[in-house]
Amino acid sequence: MRSDNRTAGQLRPIKITRHFTEYAEGSVLIECGKTKVICTATVEDSVPRWLKGTGQGWVTAEYSLLPRSTQTRVSREAAKGKQTGRTVEIQRLIGRALRAVVDLNALGERSITVDCDVIQADGGTRTASITGAFVALVDAVDFTFGGAGKFPITDFCAAISVGIGSDGPITDLCYEEDSAAIVDMNVVRTGSGNLVEVQGTGEHGTFNRDELNALLDLAEAATDELMAKQREVLGTTANKVGKEFPTAPEV
Amino acid sequence: MRSDNRTAGQLRPIKITRHFTEYAEGSVLIECGKTKVICTATVEDSVPRWLKGTGQGWVTAEYSLLPRSTQTRVSREAAKGKQTGRTVEIQRLIGRALRAVVDLNALGERSITVDCDVIQADGGTRTASITGAFVALVDAVDFTFGGAGKFPITDFCAAISVGIGSDGPITDLCYEEDSAAIVDMNVVRTGSGNLVEVQGTGEHGTFNRDELNALLDLAEAATDELMAKQREVLGTTANKVGKEFPTAPEV
Amino acid sequence: MRSDNRTAGQLRPIKITRHFTEYAEGSVLIECGKTKVICTATVEDSVPRWLKGTGQGWVTAEYSLLPRSTQTRVSREAAKGKQTGRTVEIQRLIGRALRAVVDLNALGERSITVDCDVIQADGGTRTASITGAFVALVDAVDFTFGGAGKFPITDFCAAISVGIGSDGPITDLCYEEDSAAIVDMNVVRTGSGNLVEVQGTGEHGTFNRDELNALLDLAEAATDELMAKQREVLGTTANKVGKEFPTAPEV
Amino acid sequence: MRSDNRTAGQLRPIKITRHFTEYAEGSVLIECGKTKVICTATVEDSVPRWLKGTGQGWVTAEYSLLPRSTQTRVSREAAKGKQTGRTVEIQRLIGRALRAVVDLNALGERSITVDCDVIQADGGTRTASITGAFVALVDAVDFTFGGAGKFPITDFCAAISVGIGSDGPITDLCYEEDSAAIVDMNVVRTGSGNLVEVQGTGEHGTFNRDELNALLDLAEAATDELMAKQREVLGTTANKVGKEFPTAPEV
Amino acid sequence: MRSDNRTAGQLRPIKITRHFTEYAEGSVLIECGKTKVICTATVEDSVPRWLKGTGQGWVTAEYSLLPRSTQTRVSREAAKGKQTGRTVEIQRLIGRALRAVVDLNALGERSITVDCDVIQADGGTRTASITGAFVALVDAVDFTFGGAGKFPITDFCAAISVGIGSDGPITDLCYEEDSAAIVDMNVVRTGSGNLVEVQGTGEHGTFNRDELNALLDLAEAATDELMAKQREVLGTTANKVGKEFPTAPEV
Amino acid sequence: MRSDNRTAGQLRPIKITRHFTEYAEGSVLIECGKTKVICTATVEDSVPRWLKGTGQGWVTAEYSLLPRSTQTRVSREAAKGKQTGRTVEIQRLIGRALRAVVDLNALGERSITVDCDVIQADGGTRTASITGAFVALVDAVDFTFGGAGKFPITDFCAAISVGIGSDGPITDLCYEEDSAAIVDMNVVRTGSGNLVEVQGTGEHGTFNRDELNALLDLAEAATDELMAKQREVLGTTANKVGKEFPTAPEV
Repeated sequence: MRSDNRTAGQLRPIKITRHFTEYAEGSVLIECGKTKVICTATVEDSVPRWLKGTGQGWVTAEYSLLPRSTQTRVSREAAKGKQTGRTVEIQRLIGRALRAVVDLNALGERSITVDCDVIQADGGTRTASITGAFVALVDAVDFTFGGAGKFPITDFCAAISVGIGSDGPITDLCYEEDSAAIVDMNVVRTGSGNLVEVQGTGEHGTFNRDELNALLDLAEAATDELMAKQREVLGTTANKVGKEFPTAPEV
Repeated sequence: MRSDNRTAGQLRPIKITRHFTEYAEGSVLIECGKTKVICTATVEDSVPRWLKGTGQGWVTAEYSLLPRSTQTRVSREAAKGKQTGRTVEIQRLIGRALRAVVDLNALGERSITVDCDVIQADGGTRTASITGAFVALVDAVDFTFGGAGKFPITDFCAAISVGIGSDGPITDLCYEEDSAAIVDMNVVRTGSGNLVEVQGTGEHGTFNRDELNALLDLAEAATDELMAKQREVLGTTANKVGKEFPTAPEV
Repeated sequence: MRSDNRTAGQLRPIKITRHFTEYAEGSVLIECGKTKVICTATVEDSVPRWLKGTGQGWVTAEYSLLPRSTQTRVSREAAKGKQTGRTVEIQRLIGRALRAVVDLNALGERSITVDCDVIQADGGTRTASITGAFVALVDAVDFTFGGAGKFPITDFCAAISVGIGSDGPITDLCYEEDSAAIVDMNVVRTGSGNLVEVQGTGEHGTFNRDELNALLDLAEAATDELMAKQREVLGTTANKVGKEFPTAPEV
Repeated sequence: MRSDNRTAGQLRPIKITRHFTEYAEGSVLIECGKTKVICTATVEDSVPRWLKGTGQGWVTAEYSLLPRSTQTRVSREAAKGKQTGRTVEIQRLIGRALRAVVDLNALGERSITVDCDVIQADGGTRTASITGAFVALVDAVDFTFGGAGKFPITDFCAAISVGIGSDGPITDLCYEEDSAAIVDMNVVRTGSGNLVEVQGTGEHGTFNRDELNALLDLAEAATDELMAKQREVLGTTANKVGKEFPTAPEV
Repeated sequence: MRSDNRTAGQLRPIKITRHFTEYAEGSVLIECGKTKVICTATVEDSVPRWLKGTGQGWVTAEYSLLPRSTQTRVSREAAKGKQTGRTVEIQRLIGRALRAVVDLNALGERSITVDCDVIQADGGTRTASITGAFVALVDAVDFTFGGAGKFPITDFCAAISVGIGSDGPITDLCYEEDSAAIVDMNVVRTGSGNLVEVQGTGEHGTFNRDELNALLDLAEAATDELMAKQREVLGTTANKVGKEFPTAPEV
Repeated sequence: MRSDNRTAGQLRPIKITRHFTEYAEGSVLIECGKTKVICTATVEDSVPRWLKGTGQGWVTAEYSLLPRSTQTRVSREAAKGKQTGRTVEIQRLIGRALRAVVDLNALGERSITVDCDVIQADGGTRTASITGAFVALVDAVDFTFGGAGKFPITDFCAAISVGIGSDGPITDLCYEEDSAAIVDMNVVRTGSGNLVEVQGTGEHGTFNRDELNALLDLAEAATDELMAKQREVLGTTANKVGKEFPTAPEV
């Protein structure tokens, strides 16, 4: 039995609040147990220099822990003048995960920057960021979408952490479980059931193929559940994902 | 009449939520109209080198805008590798304001870091930060307070922005009013009625002594109202501010 | 009686030397007692990107302490790779103060950078910088002025520090007085008698409205005296300030 | 058929040269086809602050591309003053991979820094770095090993990149293949057959469980081959890996 | 007698390997005793902003020690985020030395960046860098040379370190000799016999004109020998140096 | 004839003002024609970590151009966050030059930092810095000198720039001459007539041994003249240089 009485494959309570702040084109607060992340998506009508004139857009992500989102305060990166290796790694992961479900040509020459700011951290902040950022991204893309043509988001996308604890494979590790896990794995998956990212690491041990498969089974069930949640929260907007709209809406 | 129908001296609706996040010794969400700031106070049992062995503590502040707290996204300072001049100026102001009502000797050799992270910015973020940070500071100090001796917070402290708009002096400027103001002034005041900081600036014009006095009158009324709100939110803890407790509580 | 026998409202001996170095369009050495600052104003025929095509110019300031301008050596900011918060705050203040008396449209698409380098620091370096920088700015603007139209400097501008010492309000604090002051205030004022900046801070105490008014009275007298000195030093050039010249001079 | 006539599961020619430079305790040049990396391991008798007094050692890695190791020159990170996100991510991966086969207690309070400097890059530089760094690490640990007790390296460790190209899964991608791959996966494995890291990414597509398994099959065969090569190159030193030596050698 | 049995004026064994790596337009490994430097020359079809439109090219150099090129590991400059003063000084010297034998007009609007990465350091790394970089530069220039007109390299160029040890002046100091030298001098010379750079420093003593002349005599003999080596290694390409080719080669 | 009517070997008018600022242990303004440098020497009772416990002191230098010391403004290094290569090179040169005439054991465990801040630059700023810094250094050392034992300054030290212009070798080049010089050489020399540094560079040409000797002849005459000036300015303090005082002075 886990410390919060969950079963091995059980997610923590999840809550996704759209339109959390007012100014961003997409703004979401995602809560996975005590982990809370503000995800905003900002649309800008310009692209990085290497994409100018290609007709293609770009999606990128930034990630940060508020200094006291954690049990002991972490230094503010802006004050130290540099981002840690962990931060850089996470924001690259979020960006890659989101781009996997964006048709950059359909997006056109626009940049979307997704900011994931963790206000409370209890494990799984990077996967919660991806799951929440997807919803913010859909809202931001919808904000710019003309109403006809291909909707630039091609599929759903959610992420979860799984790991091997002292009693075997478990889903959605809280900080305490994460610190003790023998193996830690982050999995990003799409609505079609395919994998986008699999990052398994054995800091306190190694793992075999059977264990890997058990972890992936847990991750598949969890991400299916998360994507159902995303769909529910997005309401009718969810139906645009992966669609092509042949004619412009009547005005 | 102001854009949101307020009178010249009227504050925006104010809401202070204590215990907003779980880990910090003091954690407050302050909302002044659309301006929303998370203020956390972290206690550490160490002091800067120049205070070691003096028996004295220290209080310092850090400030940041979330990238999309604003109407157009501002670059993340951690990504640029340096804090802007504006950020540095604001966090110095917050630190000075709070120290004015802390007895650093009564605090003992402890550091308190107050983090003010703006999640939505509609003018007055630095003064909202001070007003909210004061409540977080009281909670954090109370967390460490033994129960006897001098309570290290000596008085209440709140701040407000006032300014001269096209129709004369006004209180608690929103972003739109702030951008158009001829004179902008931030005032920090204590429960005793005294001033801690007066920072008046005429970027789009200058001001005379009469105008200065009109602005200070508005600021006095507003900070009185804000300190009443702090007192209400702090409940019985408010009574410890400025007190000396002769004997330890019975156990 | 003050340590150097001055009365409460008395300025230290002030000396302003124009054309102190040869290359800058404006170059001034200002000495206020032992405080000595080199102020140079450089004119460049370009503006920051956000002003391009607006026909408007810009005035900005940089400030630095020479490492051994002070009683104990301060680290060289260039060697540490970053400017301190204090430096950033001061150069923003100097820039705002000067822009208050410049008609940026009359200046045209030119940038003026005022460098204030303190070679000896005995309190009041930021206000001495403003008072000296004004003279350098007038010289630099005059250097570029065609002879007809509006002279881009609209009024005089000088600054002073005042504060509350153990014997009450005093003017033009030296370092020793500044360190001991209960309240410290910097005031920037124009020739018309209006205020541009009022920055009062109580690090070692707070202050009431009467004390604030006493400080402002001292500051008004002091800045009047400083502006008389600027006028005297500028000679006939002083007469151009605030003037409009209807026809070009005969050649 | 692949551009260099390899079969899908075939490694490029591999060459590992020990004692490549003279000063490092371990120094290896690893060549995987055209990819060439100098891996040195440096032993220092100190540990990071958070390990002082624990009796435990530490292993960390740094990684760099020589500016012209690549087809077009990349900027020197030292000149730009910061490491790219890619560099940071890679050096974190190398460090984690190596620590998975080091008994940090058996190592004692020593730090080993492994430097992986790529002098020619044709794909697979991070996995070649791990495979080469392992050999340098064994040499460096052997250099400090007293001859009795547990040898601090507990198992072999090698890494390979696999991916899905237009003709299906392939092993050991060169730069050209890597750029075109739909899915790219780096796998780190130990001599016991277990996995340490699995990092699969679909930048140009997603992948299903069957494809993941096909990639892992290729990676297992390839890392077995690489570890046989490490064993051959290490000669009798290879026998110390994973051993405990009950008595000190006679002298 | 010197530690490695050389006579006072004797060079260490020198070996220059062209085409050391595959991608750079010029790529050389130079070995002077145990000192080993990879010198690559990269041609880019652009010039620094201040040369645009002048028809003139530019040659610049970067230098780095691999962290474990030395007897004790030096910190990686990219990780510290800045280059040391020593590095900056050396790369400026290499750039100046090479430009002395390049006709920047004949080069045309191209930039050549020479990277000198030391993989093993036993004294004389900056002079070995210059001698090796010259060969890489000739190859890179030849790569871009159309076959008619002035060959942009006007003369040979090599460098050597000389110094005064306990037994008098010596040539090509190894690290041990360099550390003990009373005077250390680096000399850059051209094929015409002229001097490009003379940098003599007395950290552990001073020197007189006679000693200076003795050092220069040693340096002249050594650089003659080094340039003969460069000529031999370059083969027929050596003949292009300093030549003008009146007509394009028949095709 | 030179632009300012000097003969080839003639120095510009030189003026050395001691005690230029009040706080530094040594403070000098040196003026060589229009070149003006403030040199201060600061004594601190601590040494870099690598000298702790050795009984030895250290002397180091920092150098800076005030932004408008030059004909067109140079960016402030503190604002850019890094020192240029030129600055680093110059401050290393000044430090080495001064250490050549300091007995670091006689100095004891003290650090002296010499700051050379150029307030007006017309060529020869690095050599003027050395010549002026020497005088500041003597004053600072004298300030700490107990009166008995070896005076830590062992000899005089001055520096000059010489170069080859269109009419042959000249001494003490102003900016205009320096820009046009074929060869530029900086020479540091001691009172004993020995050389400390010779740095000759041919950016616009090369030079032969005869030209080198002609330049050194000019440099010897010039530095003799400069050291006579130093001696004159130092008055009786000059007599302590290079002396050993057997008994403490009577009190």
